[in-house]
Amino acid sequence: MKKIITVGREFGSGGRELGRRLAEELGIAYYDKEIVSGIAEETDFSEGYIRGVVECTPSKLHPITIGRSFAYVGDYQLSHIQSVYSAQDKIIKNLAREDCVIVGRCADYILRDENPYRIFVYADFVSRLRRCTDRAYEGESLSEKQIKQRIRDMDKGRAKYYDYYTGQRWGARENYDLLVNTTDVVIKDIVGGIADIVKKSRA
Amino acid sequence: MKKIITVGREFGSGGRELGRRLAEELGIAYYDKEIVSGIAEETDFSEGYIRGVVECTPSKLHPITIGRSFAYVGDYQLSHIQSVYSAQDKIIKNLAREDCVIVGRCADYILRDENPYRIFVYADFVSRLRRCTDRAYEGESLSEKQIKQRIRDMDKGRAKYYDYYTGQRWGARENYDLLVNTTDVVIKDIVGGIADIVKKSRA
Repeated sequence: MKKIITVGREFGSGGRELGRRLAEELGIAYYDKEIVSGIAEETDFSEGYIRGVVECTPSKLHPITIGRSFAYVGDYQLSHIQSVYSAQDKIIKNLAREDCVIVGRCADYILRDENPYRIFVYADFVSRLRRCTDRAYEGESLSEKQIKQRIRDMDKGRAKYYDYYTGQRWGARENYDLLVNTTDVVIKDIVGGIADIVKKSRA
Repeated sequence: MKKIITVGREFGSGGRELGRRLAEELGIAYYDKEIVSGIAEETDFSEGYIRGVVECTPSKLHPITIGRSFAYVGDYQLSHIQSVYSAQDKIIKNLAREDCVIVGRCADYILRDENPYRIFVYADFVSRLRRCTDRAYEGESLSEKQIKQRIRDMDKGRAKYYDYYTGQRWGARENYDLLVNTTDVVIKDIVGGIADIVKKSRA
């Protein structure tokens, strides 16, 4: 059976690392930032603008984060957002023609007809704060307060985007096959076990 | 490190089978119904009465299931319930002096100082109905409608009991280390992977 694995994740939970290592362990492709680049090529929008839409970052997509629905967004902006959604849908379906791991971007929902194995990665706040503080940001230097705010903002954005796009609840167990808590866990140590579960569940 | 694994589960999700097989795979003790027998010995209540308290079955503990809190329960009954809780607490802590898997009974909460690996097992309703229909009940012959009702009643009781006893929400991801969806999954096939994750997380 084709192996399509989707990974949803809380910010700072190590979901991206888990997805990448899982793809290595299974010897299949891994897609994450490539999707944003693909959408940029498809739509001519900048990668920054696209990240704003698909991760619903407050500074990038102000009306959505303060409003209750897309009714607050002007027609012009709405048509841009729909172009991004449509390109994202097309690119993810295209990537999933072969075995792969896809991180984020509502891939679990977009690929629902492919019976993907849907993982959600999460951790407690302290552990996520530590992961965010430990990892090197690209040229960034944030205070602890700013990192805490970023974790909250990112998760709020992801949840809002997922809930709007899928009509389901982000991180609710019924939308996933496996939910993995990475608090005090070394991710590379548990990837073998997860790969084994995926292989047996999609044999 | 000591390996204490607790398994919470939706009714019909195969959580008991998963717990039993996991204990076999890890070569450690498995406790489930033994706990009820232990409480019976400790308290002199019947096993039926104790099951009513610890699983909050409507027919056994009427005031709790219709009321919002224990304020509706008479003093006499409340003292019985507290005796059962207290015996349960003592027995579970006693069992957990050595490596083991414990199914249900809020063991994740009772043993929180032992850093147990906390698993929650769930599945979609159709799959749980099939598991319940397939498995032989001890001398029972229930219609599909009755089985559906039983699934709903049991989960309602478990959630109510867990939420009251622990002050946490039953099945909410933040209270567990791993949540496993057993819909369309052969449980014995995935136990090896789960055992591996547990070993690596409590190395």
